[in-house]
Amino acid sequence: MKVVIIGGVAGGMSAATRLRRLDEDAEIIVFDKGPYVSFANCGLPFYLSGEISEHADLVVQTPEKLQQRFNLDVRPNHEVTRILPDSHEVVVRYAGQLTHESYDRLILAPGARPIMPDLPGIADAKNIYALRSIPDLDQIMTGIQAESTQHVLVVGGGFIGLEVAENLVLSGLKVTVVEQAPHVLPPLDTEMAAFVEAELARNGVRVITGQAVASFEDAGKVAILADGTRLTTDLTIIAVGVRPASQLAKAAGLRLGFHGGIVVDKQYQTSVPDIYAVGDAIVVQQQVTNDPTLIPLASPANRQGRQVADNIAGLPHPNRGSLGTAIVRAFKLTAAATGLSEYQAQQAGLTYRVVHVRGGSHAGYFPGSTPLTLKLVFNPDSGEIYGAQGVGERGVDKRIDVLATAIKGDLTIDDLPELELTYAPPFGSAKDPVNMLGYVAMNVAEGLSKTIQWHQLPAALAAGRQVLDVRDVDELADGEFPQARNIPLNQLRQRLTELNPAQPYVVSCFSGQRSYIAERLLRQHGFDVVNLDGAFALYHAVRPQDLIYQR
Amino acid sequence: MKVVIIGGVAGGMSAATRLRRLDEDAEIIVFDKGPYVSFANCGLPFYLSGEISEHADLVVQTPEKLQQRFNLDVRPNHEVTRILPDSHEVVVRYAGQLTHESYDRLILAPGARPIMPDLPGIADAKNIYALRSIPDLDQIMTGIQAESTQHVLVVGGGFIGLEVAENLVLSGLKVTVVEQAPHVLPPLDTEMAAFVEAELARNGVRVITGQAVASFEDAGKVAILADGTRLTTDLTIIAVGVRPASQLAKAAGLRLGFHGGIVVDKQYQTSVPDIYAVGDAIVVQQQVTNDPTLIPLASPANRQGRQVADNIAGLPHPNRGSLGTAIVRAFKLTAAATGLSEYQAQQAGLTYRVVHVRGGSHAGYFPGSTPLTLKLVFNPDSGEIYGAQGVGERGVDKRIDVLATAIKGDLTIDDLPELELTYAPPFGSAKDPVNMLGYVAMNVAEGLSKTIQWHQLPAALAAGRQVLDVRDVDELADGEFPQARNIPLNQLRQRLTELNPAQPYVVSCFSGQRSYIAERLLRQHGFDVVNLDGAFALYHAVRPQDLIYQR
Repeated sequence: MKVVIIGGVAGGMSAATRLRRLDEDAEIIVFDKGPYVSFANCGLPFYLSGEISEHADLVVQTPEKLQQRFNLDVRPNHEVTRILPDSHEVVVRYAGQLTHESYDRLILAPGARPIMPDLPGIADAKNIYALRSIPDLDQIMTGIQAESTQHVLVVGGGFIGLEVAENLVLSGLKVTVVEQAPHVLPPLDTEMAAFVEAELARNGVRVITGQAVASFEDAGKVAILADGTRLTTDLTIIAVGVRPASQLAKAAGLRLGFHGGIVVDKQYQTSVPDIYAVGDAIVVQQQVTNDPTLIPLASPANRQGRQVADNIAGLPHPNRGSLGTAIVRAFKLTAAATGLSEYQAQQAGLTYRVVHVRGGSHAGYFPGSTPLTLKLVFNPDSGEIYGAQGVGERGVDKRIDVLATAIKGDLTIDDLPELELTYAPPFGSAKDPVNMLGYVAMNVAEGLSKTIQWHQLPAALAAGRQVLDVRDVDELADGEFPQARNIPLNQLRQRLTELNPAQPYVVSCFSGQRSYIAERLLRQHGFDVVNLDGAFALYHAVRPQDLIYQR
Repeated sequence: MKVVIIGGVAGGMSAATRLRRLDEDAEIIVFDKGPYVSFANCGLPFYLSGEISEHADLVVQTPEKLQQRFNLDVRPNHEVTRILPDSHEVVVRYAGQLTHESYDRLILAPGARPIMPDLPGIADAKNIYALRSIPDLDQIMTGIQAESTQHVLVVGGGFIGLEVAENLVLSGLKVTVVEQAPHVLPPLDTEMAAFVEAELARNGVRVITGQAVASFEDAGKVAILADGTRLTTDLTIIAVGVRPASQLAKAAGLRLGFHGGIVVDKQYQTSVPDIYAVGDAIVVQQQVTNDPTLIPLASPANRQGRQVADNIAGLPHPNRGSLGTAIVRAFKLTAAATGLSEYQAQQAGLTYRVVHVRGGSHAGYFPGSTPLTLKLVFNPDSGEIYGAQGVGERGVDKRIDVLATAIKGDLTIDDLPELELTYAPPFGSAKDPVNMLGYVAMNVAEGLSKTIQWHQLPAALAAGRQVLDVRDVDELADGEFPQARNIPLNQLRQRLTELNPAQPYVVSCFSGQRSYIAERLLRQHGFDVVNLDGAFALYHAVRPQDLIYQR
């Protein structure tokens, strides 16, 4: 059997090496149009700062080693220009020459290509880059090492954009990030992204949201935003997302689907016989909604590469869809998400509720504990977990991994408190924040707690509710809600007579835990009361301008 | 409704506070025989070294605050001496006086008490302690701060024993640990515990396993082991485990079960009407085997406390059993386990296989990645996951949490590669070690890989197999298997003719990844070959004395 693979990074190389382990006799040829195969795509931004200091560390394998270890015929700098399904051939360009290569099975793993908006002035610029490959990286390194480079513009505030921004700051540059969406990290919801925006600002990154770059002038030295703002930039990196590199597939008559992704069946077979596809270029089924989507991430690509080899070798391992889990470090903070955001749940027309929990990375009585905020999106009727997000200095990766696993296992909100997670003081808490997410979600689903979200507070106040803030008096220096009444929780039961039974309240504390206790207390005493989910800490992150900072 | 709770720490206090949130009118009295309630039991060992430096940090709540916030009547130093189920009363001793207190519902949360072996000489000693409460801790602190105290003996090398040992070393003392089992951390298997034993040794802890203390002499200044070894000790801490504090329950006629634990139904009701029990004292159902067991850990205790309050308040949340997840830090290393060990699976008569995977805490090309070793115990036919263990410097807690969640969700080995865990270079790998566990287990279950375990190697060699070591030549300096043949993996395909087709081989490399590739290669070329699971790294951890360290 002769197998030709187009693309030699995550999906393609996983397919090649797995196939060799299953079939010592197969002839396996891997074409890649770039000079490097099997490189650490996800590591590229960290080379900008020197945090990854060795260029060689970015290259996981070389064609020579892959030949020795796996008897693979890996051909970099070979661009497949056409697929000829009828004759089972591909046309390959190398060093200007075109040749034909036959195949019994063809695996497409072309990945995704950066979206480069066709803006006025961009063609005249020589200082505008994407970051997708090692040659891209090398060009950018040359650019940022030039003495004249001081200001860098990053267009796009998603995961890659923020990694690039962080590493450029760490390398000593002034960085501006422009994001078209209302907030950075669009896969997260507004209030969770707010923590990250604050951390970016603390580290000197200028963040402009809700604005697109409209054009470039002066050979790329000036970027002009939609509202006319002019930004000077010595070097610009475009990180506004990727799209499937499916031109070759399209030209060969393969069926394309969602946003131009290659359509495959559960065995990764395309619409054309003997042609398979994996990785960033294919349409996958989102595991929560079962809708078609694109998830251009390394983890699914590696898995799909292995599975397509299994299927070709007669070991059926079907494509079971993807969840989409992503994480980014932004200076001291980590932000991560899995499954659906609230925005996505809303767009999908799902019945959902959300809760926020602020907890510690580990037991608060043990040194080094730092706060983290988790958000859960769930169905209040069935308990199904739609998605989760987290932000904090430490332990966010762990909690999102647990929640991604819970979604995979179809666990419901009722199951989250049942999780027995590792607990010793340096590692966790007897009630882990993930357990707490379950308790809080159950309280909401079972009607024990009636919550409003941060964005609902202004309307609630306008409708006549008053904030009852149950923080201790010394905490009020951090900021206060307008027209709020303060009674510390520990005095509330004795001071109930100070409250007006006809007045509807919204209770808040710092994190939401004490206000929930107050909510339960007040409701049982006949008050009309709701709890501000996430409480002061969340509100302060997303709407600091609404708060009052002096008495 | 008047609810009396016996025991004011994890389970009891969770029950009390949840009950108040559900029922503002209930009369809730909490008796604790000790001077402190709601204290950080799991933090006590870390006060020995000063890592937790403030005594006050160990006390999470005081009776005064619990009164103010939750209207709880919390009475420390009140020992319940009898339960009178017929009259719905308890007899309480306080300051030498006995009084009766009536109840509508009684919740027993007495916890567990340290096992103190009745050894000759122990009664005469004044320097032998357990560590279960703050008064215990205070006594031990006085003892170790005495100038004459230099050598401390820790009897018991389980989780608590090792935490105590580590913190005593950090405080500058010489520590010996005696463990009756063949290795420390009996919930882990031999080869996983071996990493911890090596770390203890590196930090100057003398570890004696497979030995019990038989007696003490010289007012506790000398401990004599079963084999006659005499150990001098200035202070001894007994940490050989706990047993349910169920005497009161037994005296009241409540049904006891497994190892003296209190038997409860799914609503935490004991065999006597209106009496409930939660926490370390109760028998629970082990979630993997469904067998009755005791799991004296904080996480289940807190959950049970909350659930019993729900059930009493008419909000049914049944006891769904416990998994048992535990973690310990031993100097730079972390060791953790969830579900069943191999030994427990064997004892339970289950059909099982095990695999070991050595991976990185995060991507190897990003600075700071450290190795971790994971072990999975699973059913090769159904794919059911029975349990997992991990050891390493970083990221062990995360992987065991993911695996505990996977077990909870009834995920199988086939699901582990499907987990989409957070991946960016500082946090993980595109193929996380948990994904790899699944791949390796599937290879074993599907017959692609035939493995032997470290303890099977001597028999395999005796039966005529030869080790084929596919490490690179420069790696052999770390040690070699006896009579091994070395052919680096990258040369293997070309040098096949050097191997004897009639010779059965066992392949090894450093971690098991290259040897698996070699195994697949050799088998397809007709060789009789098995793979040494865990390979050199695991064997070197558990049987370093079997290896050869010079050519």
